[in-house]
Amino acid sequence: MKRVMMRVAYDGTDYCGWQLQPGAPTIEGVLNGALTELLGETITVTGASRTDSGVHSLGNVAVFDTETRIPAEKISYALNQRLPDDIVVQESGEVAPDFHPRHCDSRKTYEYRILNREFPLPTERRDSYFTYRTLDVDAMRTAARDIVGTHDFASFCSAHAQTETTVRTVYDCRVEKTGDLICIRVTGAGFLYNMVRIIAGTLLEIGCGARKPEAMKTIIEACDRSAAGPTAPAHGLTMIGIEFEKKPYI
Amino acid sequence: MKRVMMRVAYDGTDYCGWQLQPGAPTIEGVLNGALTELLGETITVTGASRTDSGVHSLGNVAVFDTETRIPAEKISYALNQRLPDDIVVQESGEVAPDFHPRHCDSRKTYEYRILNREFPLPTERRDSYFTYRTLDVDAMRTAARDIVGTHDFASFCSAHAQTETTVRTVYDCRVEKTGDLICIRVTGAGFLYNMVRIIAGTLLEIGCGARKPEAMKTIIEACDRSAAGPTAPAHGLTMIGIEFEKKPYI
Repeated sequence: MKRVMMRVAYDGTDYCGWQLQPGAPTIEGVLNGALTELLGETITVTGASRTDSGVHSLGNVAVFDTETRIPAEKISYALNQRLPDDIVVQESGEVAPDFHPRHCDSRKTYEYRILNREFPLPTERRDSYFTYRTLDVDAMRTAARDIVGTHDFASFCSAHAQTETTVRTVYDCRVEKTGDLICIRVTGAGFLYNMVRIIAGTLLEIGCGARKPEAMKTIIEACDRSAAGPTAPAHGLTMIGIEFEKKPYI
Repeated sequence: MKRVMMRVAYDGTDYCGWQLQPGAPTIEGVLNGALTELLGETITVTGASRTDSGVHSLGNVAVFDTETRIPAEKISYALNQRLPDDIVVQESGEVAPDFHPRHCDSRKTYEYRILNREFPLPTERRDSYFTYRTLDVDAMRTAARDIVGTHDFASFCSAHAQTETTVRTVYDCRVEKTGDLICIRVTGAGFLYNMVRIIAGTLLEIGCGARKPEAMKTIIEACDRSAAGPTAPAHGLTMIGIEFEKKPYI
Protein backbone atom coordinates (compact mmCIF):
# COMPACT_ATOMS: atom_id res chain seq x y z
CA MET A 1 0.00 0.00 0.00
CA LYS A 2 1.21 3.48 -0.78
CA ARG A 3 -0.17 6.97 -0.26
CA VAL A 4 -0.26 9.21 -3.31
CA MET A 5 -0.63 12.98 -3.36
CA MET A 6 -1.89 14.91 -6.40
CA ARG A 7 -2.21 18.59 -7.23
CA VAL A 8 -5.51 19.12 -9.02
CA ALA A 9 -6.61 22.11 -11.12
CA TYR A 10 -10.26 22.64 -11.99
CA ASP A 11 -12.80 25.04 -13.40
CA GLY A 12 -15.46 24.86 -10.68
CA THR A 13 -18.25 26.40 -12.78
CA ASP A 14 -20.09 23.16 -13.45
CA TYR A 15 -19.50 21.49 -10.04
CA CYS A 16 -21.25 21.59 -6.69
CA GLY A 17 -17.89 22.13 -5.00
CA TRP A 18 -15.19 19.71 -3.93
CA GLN A 19 -16.94 17.57 -1.37
CA LEU A 20 -18.77 14.37 -2.27
CA GLN A 21 -22.55 14.78 -2.52
CA PRO A 22 -24.86 12.03 -3.67
CA GLY A 23 -26.53 12.89 -6.96
CA ALA A 24 -24.52 16.08 -7.59
CA PRO A 25 -21.33 16.51 -9.64
CA THR A 26 -18.38 17.27 -7.35
CA ILE A 27 -14.61 17.33 -7.89
CA GLU A 28 -14.10 14.65 -5.23
CA GLY A 29 -16.77 12.46 -6.81
CA VAL A 30 -15.21 12.69 -10.28
CA LEU A 31 -11.70 11.97 -8.91
CA ASN A 32 -12.93 8.97 -6.88
CA GLY A 33 -14.73 7.57 -9.92
CA ALA A 34 -11.85 8.02 -12.35
CA LEU A 35 -9.24 6.64 -9.90
CA THR A 36 -11.40 3.63 -9.03
CA GLU A 37 -11.79 2.86 -12.73
CA LEU A 38 -8.09 3.41 -13.49
CA LEU A 39 -6.68 1.43 -10.55
CA GLY A 40 -9.33 -1.29 -10.27
CA GLU A 41 -9.85 -0.79 -6.54
CA THR A 42 -12.19 1.49 -4.58
CA ILE A 43 -10.43 4.82 -4.10
CA THR A 44 -11.48 7.65 -1.80
CA VAL A 45 -9.50 10.87 -1.97
CA THR A 46 -9.00 13.33 0.89
CA GLY A 47 -8.77 16.98 -0.14
CA ALA A 48 -6.73 19.78 1.44
CA SER A 49 -9.34 22.45 0.71
CA ARG A 50 -13.01 21.59 0.38
CA THR A 51 -13.80 24.43 -2.02
CA ASP A 52 -17.39 25.64 -2.41
CA SER A 53 -19.63 25.28 -5.43
CA GLY A 54 -18.30 27.45 -8.27
CA VAL A 55 -14.82 28.01 -6.77
CA HIS A 56 -11.86 27.17 -9.04
CA SER A 57 -8.38 25.85 -8.35
CA LEU A 58 -4.97 25.80 -9.97
CA GLY A 59 -3.63 23.23 -7.52
CA ASN A 60 -5.80 21.83 -4.73
CA VAL A 61 -4.23 18.82 -3.03
CA ALA A 62 -5.76 15.35 -2.79
CA VAL A 63 -4.29 12.20 -1.26
CA PHE A 64 -5.41 8.57 -1.49
CA ASP A 65 -4.16 5.08 -0.65
CA THR A 66 -3.65 2.45 -3.32
CA GLU A 67 -2.23 -1.01 -3.92
CA THR A 68 -1.37 -0.19 -7.53
CA ARG A 69 2.03 -0.94 -9.05
CA ILE A 70 1.75 2.10 -11.35
CA PRO A 71 4.51 4.50 -10.19
CA ALA A 72 2.94 7.39 -8.25
CA GLU A 73 4.52 9.97 -10.61
CA LYS A 74 2.82 8.36 -13.63
CA ILE A 75 -0.70 8.43 -12.18
CA SER A 76 -1.21 12.08 -13.26
CA TYR A 77 -0.75 11.17 -16.95
CA ALA A 78 -2.96 8.07 -16.83
CA LEU A 79 -5.67 9.77 -14.79
CA ASN A 80 -5.90 12.85 -17.03
CA GLN A 81 -6.92 10.54 -19.90
CA ARG A 82 -10.03 9.66 -17.88
CA LEU A 83 -10.91 13.10 -16.52
CA PRO A 84 -13.16 15.70 -18.17
CA ASP A 85 -11.32 18.76 -19.51
CA ASP A 86 -12.41 20.95 -16.58
CA ILE A 87 -10.38 18.84 -14.10
CA VAL A 88 -6.66 18.28 -14.76
CA VAL A 89 -4.11 16.71 -12.42
CA GLN A 90 -0.93 18.83 -12.44
CA GLU A 91 1.38 16.36 -10.68
CA SER A 92 1.35 13.21 -8.55
CA GLY A 93 3.85 11.53 -6.25
CA GLU A 94 4.21 9.22 -3.28
CA VAL A 95 4.01 10.67 0.24
CA ALA A 96 4.54 9.19 3.72
CA PRO A 97 1.72 6.80 4.75
CA ASP A 98 0.72 9.16 7.59
CA PHE A 99 0.70 12.35 5.48
CA HIS A 100 -2.64 14.18 5.77
CA PRO A 101 -3.09 17.35 3.70
CA ARG A 102 -5.24 19.09 6.33
CA HIS A 103 -3.25 18.07 9.41
CA CYS A 104 0.18 19.48 8.64
CA ASP A 105 1.76 22.91 8.51
CA SER A 106 1.10 24.61 5.21
CA ARG A 107 0.53 27.92 3.47
CA LYS A 108 -2.54 28.16 1.29
CA THR A 109 -2.96 30.91 -1.29
CA TYR A 110 -6.29 32.08 -2.70
CA GLU A 111 -7.02 34.77 -5.25
CA TYR A 112 -10.24 36.72 -5.62
CA ARG A 113 -10.57 38.30 -9.07
CA ILE A 114 -12.71 41.39 -9.71
CA LEU A 115 -13.37 42.69 -13.23
CA ASN A 116 -13.96 46.42 -12.84
CA ARG A 117 -15.23 48.19 -15.96
CA GLU A 118 -18.44 49.56 -17.45
CA PHE A 119 -19.68 46.27 -18.98
CA PRO A 120 -18.74 42.63 -18.24
CA LEU A 121 -16.41 40.73 -20.58
CA PRO A 122 -17.80 37.30 -21.57
CA THR A 123 -14.33 35.71 -21.70
CA GLU A 124 -13.76 36.66 -18.04
CA ARG A 125 -17.21 35.82 -16.69
CA ARG A 126 -16.47 32.34 -15.35
CA ASP A 127 -13.61 33.17 -13.00
CA SER A 128 -14.00 36.80 -12.02
CA TYR A 129 -16.66 38.84 -10.26
CA PHE A 130 -17.85 41.79 -12.31
CA THR A 131 -18.66 45.21 -10.92
CA TYR A 132 -19.06 48.54 -12.74
CA ARG A 133 -18.76 50.51 -9.47
CA THR A 134 -15.59 52.61 -9.33
CA LEU A 135 -13.21 50.95 -6.87
CA ASP A 136 -10.52 52.80 -4.91
CA VAL A 137 -7.72 50.26 -5.09
CA ASP A 138 -5.47 52.27 -2.73
CA ALA A 139 -8.18 52.18 -0.04
CA MET A 140 -8.52 48.40 -0.56
CA ARG A 141 -4.73 48.01 -0.23
CA THR A 142 -4.62 49.99 3.01
CA ALA A 143 -7.40 47.88 4.52
CA ALA A 144 -5.83 44.62 3.27
CA ARG A 145 -2.72 45.33 5.37
CA ASP A 146 -4.77 45.03 8.57
CA ILE A 147 -5.79 41.48 7.63
CA VAL A 148 -2.17 40.30 7.87
CA GLY A 149 -1.18 38.69 11.18
CA THR A 150 -2.66 36.33 13.75
CA HIS A 151 -6.17 37.46 14.65
CA ASP A 152 -9.48 36.11 15.79
CA PHE A 153 -11.27 36.14 12.41
CA ALA A 154 -14.75 35.39 13.82
CA SER A 155 -16.10 38.37 11.84
CA PHE A 156 -14.97 36.59 8.66
CA CYS A 157 -16.53 33.21 9.34
CA SER A 158 -19.93 32.10 8.07
CA ALA A 159 -22.27 31.94 11.04
CA HIS A 160 -23.16 28.26 10.58
CA ALA A 161 -19.54 27.04 10.52
CA GLN A 162 -18.40 24.80 13.35
CA THR A 163 -14.79 25.17 14.37
CA GLU A 164 -12.78 24.89 17.59
CA THR A 165 -11.14 28.28 17.26
CA THR A 166 -11.62 31.21 14.92
CA VAL A 167 -8.00 32.37 15.37
CA ARG A 168 -6.04 32.15 12.11
CA THR A 169 -2.73 33.48 10.78
CA VAL A 170 -2.66 35.41 7.48
CA TYR A 171 0.86 35.78 6.08
CA ASP A 172 0.04 38.08 3.21
CA CYS A 173 -2.94 39.94 1.77
CA ARG A 174 -2.37 42.14 -1.25
CA VAL A 175 -4.49 43.91 -3.81
CA GLU A 176 -3.12 44.27 -7.33
CA LYS A 177 -4.58 45.94 -10.39
CA THR A 178 -3.71 45.01 -13.99
CA GLY A 179 -5.84 46.83 -16.53
CA ASP A 180 -9.48 46.25 -15.54
CA LEU A 181 -8.70 43.32 -13.30
CA ILE A 182 -8.25 43.70 -9.54
CA CYS A 183 -6.81 40.66 -7.73
CA ILE A 184 -6.98 40.14 -3.98
CA ARG A 185 -4.37 37.52 -3.11
CA VAL A 186 -4.37 36.05 0.41
CA THR A 187 -1.89 33.57 1.88
CA GLY A 188 -2.53 31.97 5.26
CA ALA A 189 -1.87 28.94 7.42
CA GLY A 190 -5.53 28.04 7.10
CA PHE A 191 -8.86 29.72 6.54
CA LEU A 192 -12.29 29.67 8.16
CA TYR A 193 -15.35 28.72 6.15
CA ASN A 194 -15.97 31.45 3.51
CA MET A 195 -13.21 33.59 5.06
CA VAL A 196 -11.58 34.69 1.78
CA ARG A 197 -14.94 35.50 0.19
CA ILE A 198 -15.96 37.59 3.23
CA ILE A 199 -12.59 39.40 3.14
CA ALA A 200 -13.23 40.09 -0.57
CA GLY A 201 -16.79 41.27 0.13
CA THR A 202 -15.52 43.62 2.85
CA LEU A 203 -12.70 44.97 0.64
CA LEU A 204 -15.28 45.56 -2.12
CA GLU A 205 -17.36 47.70 0.30
CA ILE A 206 -14.21 49.64 1.21
CA GLY A 207 -13.24 49.97 -2.46
CA CYS A 208 -16.55 51.52 -3.45
CA GLY A 209 -16.46 53.94 -0.51
CA ALA A 210 -19.28 52.43 1.56
CA ARG A 211 -16.75 52.07 4.40
CA LYS A 212 -13.43 53.69 5.23
CA PRO A 213 -10.21 51.64 5.02
CA GLU A 214 -9.68 52.20 8.77
CA ALA A 215 -12.87 50.21 9.42
CA MET A 216 -11.04 46.93 8.80
CA LYS A 217 -9.39 47.00 12.26
CA THR A 218 -12.75 47.59 13.98
CA ILE A 219 -14.39 44.84 11.93
CA ILE A 220 -11.74 42.32 13.02
CA GLU A 221 -12.00 43.41 16.66
CA ALA A 222 -15.79 43.03 16.64
CA CYS A 223 -15.50 39.22 16.30
CA ASP A 224 -19.00 39.28 14.87
CA ARG A 225 -19.98 38.13 11.37
CA SER A 226 -22.46 41.00 11.02
CA ALA A 227 -19.63 43.55 11.37
CA ALA A 228 -18.01 42.47 8.07
CA GLY A 229 -19.24 42.88 4.48
CA PRO A 230 -21.18 40.32 2.46
CA THR A 231 -19.74 37.02 1.19
CA ALA A 232 -18.48 37.80 -2.32
CA PRO A 233 -19.77 35.42 -5.06
CA ALA A 234 -17.99 32.06 -5.35
CA HIS A 235 -17.04 32.25 -9.04
CA GLY A 236 -14.51 35.07 -8.39
CA LEU A 237 -12.45 32.80 -6.10
CA THR A 238 -9.56 30.58 -7.19
CA MET A 239 -7.49 28.41 -4.91
CA ILE A 240 -3.97 29.05 -6.20
CA GLY A 241 -2.05 26.38 -4.33
CA ILE A 242 -0.61 24.97 -1.12
CA GLU A 243 2.97 24.91 0.08
CA PHE A 244 3.80 22.41 2.81
CA GLU A 245 6.42 23.24 5.46
CA LYS A 246 8.08 19.85 4.92
CA LYS A 247 8.40 18.56 1.36
CA PRO A 248 5.61 15.96 1.20
CA TYR A 249 6.94 13.68 -1.56
CA ILE A 250 9.19 10.77 -0.54
CA MET B 1 -33.66 56.32 -39.82
CA LYS B 2 -30.27 56.23 -38.13
CA ARG B 3 -27.25 53.95 -38.33
CA VAL B 4 -25.98 52.60 -35.04
CA MET B 5 -22.55 51.08 -34.37
CA MET B 6 -21.88 48.73 -31.46
CA ARG B 7 -18.73 47.14 -30.06
CA VAL B 8 -19.54 43.56 -29.09
CA ALA B 9 -17.57 41.21 -26.82
CA TYR B 10 -18.24 37.47 -26.83
CA ASP B 11 -17.01 34.10 -25.69
CA GLY B 12 -17.17 32.21 -28.99
CA THR B 13 -17.00 28.73 -27.40
CA ASP B 14 -20.67 27.88 -27.85
CA TYR B 15 -21.20 29.59 -31.24
CA CYS B 16 -20.70 28.57 -34.85
CA GLY B 17 -18.91 31.86 -35.47
CA TRP B 18 -20.18 35.33 -36.29
CA GLN B 19 -21.98 34.85 -39.56
CA LEU B 20 -25.65 33.95 -39.79
CA GLN B 21 -26.30 30.25 -40.45
CA PRO B 22 -29.76 28.73 -40.48
CA GLY B 23 -30.21 26.28 -37.60
CA ALA B 24 -26.91 27.07 -35.88
CA PRO B 25 -26.20 29.51 -33.04
CA THR B 26 -24.14 32.46 -34.32
CA ILE B 27 -23.25 35.85 -32.83
CA GLU B 28 -24.94 37.65 -35.73
CA GLY B 29 -28.07 35.55 -35.32
CA VAL B 30 -28.34 36.27 -31.59
CA LEU B 31 -27.77 40.02 -32.14
CA ASN B 32 -30.37 40.19 -34.93
CA GLY B 33 -32.90 38.35 -32.78
CA ALA B 34 -32.36 40.44 -29.64
CA LEU B 35 -32.36 43.76 -31.57
CA THR B 36 -35.49 42.85 -33.52
CA GLU B 37 -37.25 42.02 -30.25
CA LEU B 38 -35.98 45.15 -28.48
CA LEU B 39 -36.71 47.63 -31.27
CA GLY B 40 -39.88 46.07 -32.72
CA GLU B 41 -38.59 46.14 -36.31
CA THR B 42 -36.56 43.62 -38.34
CA ILE B 43 -32.88 44.34 -37.71
CA THR B 44 -29.93 42.91 -39.64
CA VAL B 45 -26.45 43.74 -38.35
CA THR B 46 -23.29 43.98 -40.47
CA GLY B 47 -20.10 42.86 -38.74
CA ALA B 48 -16.58 44.20 -39.20
CA SER B 49 -14.94 40.81 -38.67
CA ARG B 50 -16.79 37.59 -39.46
CA THR B 51 -14.95 35.53 -36.86
CA ASP B 52 -14.83 31.73 -37.15
CA SER B 53 -16.51 29.18 -34.93
CA GLY B 54 -14.86 29.21 -31.49
CA VAL B 55 -13.08 32.56 -31.92
CA HIS B 56 -13.67 35.16 -29.18
CA SER B 57 -13.83 38.93 -29.19
CA LEU B 58 -13.41 41.82 -26.80
CA GLY B 59 -14.86 44.32 -29.26
CA ASN B 60 -15.99 43.27 -32.71
CA VAL B 61 -17.97 45.99 -34.49
CA ALA B 62 -21.53 45.66 -35.77
CA VAL B 63 -23.70 48.31 -37.42
CA PHE B 64 -27.42 48.35 -38.21
CA ASP B 65 -30.14 50.76 -39.32
CA THR B 66 -33.14 51.52 -37.15
CA GLU B 67 -36.17 53.80 -36.88
CA THR B 68 -36.09 53.65 -33.07
CA ARG B 69 -36.33 56.78 -30.90
CA ILE B 70 -34.13 55.15 -28.23
CA PRO B 71 -30.88 57.20 -28.16
CA ALA B 72 -28.11 55.20 -29.85
CA GLU B 73 -25.90 55.43 -26.73
CA LYS B 74 -28.61 53.76 -24.62
CA ILE B 75 -29.08 50.74 -26.89
CA SER B 76 -26.09 48.92 -25.31
CA TYR B 77 -27.75 48.93 -21.87
CA ALA B 78 -31.17 47.85 -23.14
CA LEU B 79 -29.77 45.19 -25.45
CA ASN B 80 -27.52 43.61 -22.80
CA GLN B 81 -30.67 42.83 -20.78
CA ARG B 82 -31.79 40.57 -23.65
CA LEU B 83 -28.45 38.95 -24.50
CA PRO B 84 -27.02 35.73 -23.02
CA ASP B 85 -24.04 36.26 -20.70
CA ASP B 86 -21.54 35.12 -23.35
CA ILE B 87 -22.36 38.14 -25.59
CA VAL B 88 -22.07 41.65 -24.10
CA VAL B 89 -22.30 44.97 -25.97
CA GLN B 90 -19.51 47.27 -24.74
CA GLU B 91 -20.76 50.53 -26.29
CA SER B 92 -23.17 51.86 -28.89
CA GLY B 93 -23.52 55.17 -30.74
CA GLU B 94 -24.82 56.78 -33.91
CA VAL B 95 -22.61 56.80 -37.02
CA ALA B 96 -22.96 58.42 -40.46
CA PRO B 97 -25.65 56.74 -42.62
CA ASP B 98 -22.99 55.61 -45.12
CA PHE B 99 -20.54 54.21 -42.52
CA HIS B 100 -19.65 50.58 -43.31
CA PRO B 101 -17.33 48.76 -40.86
CA ARG B 102 -15.60 46.74 -43.60
CA HIS B 103 -15.24 49.50 -46.20
CA CYS B 104 -13.26 52.12 -44.32
CA ASP B 105 -9.69 52.49 -43.13
CA SER B 106 -9.11 50.72 -39.85
CA ARG B 107 -6.61 48.84 -37.72
CA LYS B 108 -7.73 45.49 -36.41
CA THR B 109 -5.93 43.75 -33.55
CA TYR B 110 -6.05 40.02 -32.85
CA GLU B 111 -4.38 38.01 -30.09
CA TYR B 112 -3.49 34.34 -30.21
CA ARG B 113 -2.97 32.89 -26.71
CA ILE B 114 -0.81 29.82 -26.08
CA LEU B 115 -0.66 28.14 -22.66
CA ASN B 116 2.76 26.51 -22.49
CA ARG B 117 3.28 24.20 -19.50
CA GLU B 118 3.36 20.50 -18.63
CA PHE B 119 -0.41 20.08 -18.13
CA PRO B 120 -3.37 22.20 -19.29
CA LEU B 121 -5.14 24.52 -16.84
CA PRO B 122 -8.95 24.10 -16.89
CA THR B 123 -9.58 27.79 -16.18
CA GLU B 124 -7.61 28.74 -19.33
CA ARG B 125 -8.93 26.04 -21.65
CA ARG B 126 -11.66 28.05 -23.38
CA ASP B 127 -9.55 30.91 -24.73
CA SER B 128 -6.01 29.60 -25.08
CA TYR B 129 -4.36 26.83 -27.05
CA PHE B 130 -2.41 24.41 -24.84
CA THR B 131 0.92 22.85 -25.71
CA TYR B 132 3.45 21.11 -23.47
CA ARG B 133 6.21 21.42 -26.14
CA THR B 134 9.01 23.76 -25.06
CA LEU B 135 8.69 26.94 -27.10
CA ASP B 136 11.61 29.24 -27.92
CA VAL B 137 9.91 32.62 -27.52
CA ASP B 138 12.96 34.52 -28.81
CA ALA B 139 12.87 32.55 -32.06
CA MET B 140 9.13 33.29 -32.38
CA ARG B 141 9.82 37.02 -31.79
CA THR B 142 12.52 37.11 -34.46
CA ALA B 143 10.22 35.46 -37.00
CA ALA B 144 7.28 37.71 -36.02
CA ARG B 145 9.27 40.78 -37.10
CA ASP B 146 9.29 39.55 -40.71
CA ILE B 147 5.48 39.52 -40.75
CA VAL B 148 5.35 43.30 -40.27
CA GLY B 149 4.95 45.37 -43.46
CA THR B 150 3.02 45.21 -46.71
CA HIS B 151 3.40 41.76 -48.24
CA ASP B 152 1.57 39.30 -50.43
CA PHE B 153 0.30 36.98 -47.69
CA ALA B 154 -0.96 34.25 -50.04
CA SER B 155 0.99 31.69 -47.95
CA PHE B 156 -1.19 32.68 -44.98
CA CYS B 157 -4.57 32.42 -46.67
CA SER B 158 -6.81 29.34 -46.54
CA ALA B 159 -6.82 27.79 -50.00
CA HIS B 160 -10.60 28.00 -50.46
CA ALA B 161 -10.80 31.74 -49.71
CA GLN B 162 -11.90 34.04 -52.53
CA THR B 163 -10.34 37.49 -52.49
CA GLU B 164 -9.28 40.08 -55.09
CA THR B 165 -5.77 40.47 -53.73
CA THR B 166 -3.75 38.68 -51.07
CA VAL B 167 -1.61 41.76 -50.36
CA ARG B 168 -2.16 43.05 -46.82
CA THR B 169 -0.40 45.45 -44.44
CA VAL B 170 0.57 44.29 -40.94
CA TYR B 171 1.48 47.21 -38.64
CA ASP B 172 2.68 45.18 -35.71
CA CYS B 173 3.28 41.55 -34.75
CA ARG B 174 4.72 40.85 -31.33
CA VAL B 175 5.15 37.82 -29.10
CA GLU B 176 4.94 38.34 -25.34
CA LYS B 177 5.35 35.87 -22.50
CA THR B 178 3.78 36.28 -19.05
CA GLY B 179 4.29 33.24 -16.84
CA ASP B 180 3.05 30.20 -18.80
CA LEU B 181 1.11 32.29 -21.29
CA ILE B 182 2.53 33.30 -24.67
CA CYS B 183 0.54 35.92 -26.59
CA ILE B 184 0.96 36.64 -30.29
CA ARG B 185 -0.58 40.06 -30.95
CA VAL B 186 -1.07 41.17 -34.55
CA THR B 187 -2.37 44.53 -35.77
CA GLY B 188 -3.15 45.08 -39.44
CA ALA B 189 -5.26 47.03 -41.90
CA GLY B 190 -7.12 43.84 -42.69
CA PHE B 191 -6.56 40.10 -42.71
CA LEU B 192 -7.08 37.24 -45.12
CA TYR B 193 -9.26 34.29 -44.17
CA ASN B 194 -7.53 32.35 -41.34
CA MET B 195 -4.44 34.57 -41.68
CA VAL B 196 -3.83 35.13 -37.95
CA ARG B 197 -4.35 31.44 -37.16
CA ILE B 198 -1.90 30.43 -39.92
CA ILE B 199 0.63 33.00 -38.61
CA ALA B 200 0.16 31.48 -35.12
CA GLY B 201 0.53 27.92 -36.47
CA THR B 202 3.73 28.90 -38.28
CA LEU B 203 5.16 30.69 -35.22
CA LEU B 204 4.34 27.57 -33.16
CA GLU B 205 6.41 25.44 -35.55
CA ILE B 206 9.27 27.93 -35.27
CA GLY B 207 8.88 28.05 -31.46
CA CYS B 208 9.22 24.31 -31.09
CA GLY B 209 12.26 24.18 -33.38
CA ALA B 210 10.65 22.43 -36.37
CA ARG B 211 11.68 25.43 -38.48
CA LYS B 212 14.27 28.18 -38.11
CA PRO B 213 13.11 31.78 -37.48
CA GLU B 214 14.74 32.81 -40.79
CA ALA B 215 12.24 30.56 -42.60
CA MET B 216 9.49 33.17 -42.18
CA LYS B 217 10.86 35.35 -45.02
CA THR B 218 10.98 32.36 -47.39
CA ILE B 219 7.47 31.30 -46.39
CA ILE B 220 6.08 34.76 -47.21
CA GLU B 221 7.96 34.86 -50.55
CA ALA B 222 6.63 31.44 -51.55
CA CYS B 223 3.06 32.84 -51.88
CA ASP B 224 1.86 29.28 -51.39
CA ARG B 225 -0.37 28.06 -48.55
CA SER B 226 1.56 24.79 -48.30
CA ALA B 227 4.77 26.69 -47.42
CA ALA B 228 3.36 27.92 -44.09
CA GLY B 229 2.50 25.98 -40.92
CA PRO B 230 -0.91 24.56 -39.98
CA THR B 231 -3.93 26.70 -39.04
CA ALA B 232 -3.77 26.96 -35.24
CA PRO B 233 -7.01 25.96 -33.41
CA ALA B 234 -9.75 28.62 -33.32
CA HIS B 235 -10.27 28.74 -29.54
CA GLY B 236 -6.83 30.36 -28.98
CA LEU B 237 -7.82 33.41 -31.04
CA THR B 238 -9.43 36.59 -29.70
CA MET B 239 -10.33 39.62 -31.74
CA ILE B 240 -9.17 42.46 -29.50
CA GLY B 241 -10.70 45.42 -31.29
CA ILE B 242 -10.82 47.81 -34.22
CA GLU B 243 -9.65 51.40 -34.46
CA PHE B 244 -11.06 53.47 -37.30
CA GLU B 245 -8.94 56.14 -39.01
CA LYS B 246 -11.81 58.65 -38.71
CA LYS B 247 -13.85 58.66 -35.49
CA PRO B 248 -17.03 56.82 -36.53
CA TYR B 249 -19.52 58.27 -34.00
CA ILE B 250 -21.37 61.45 -34.97
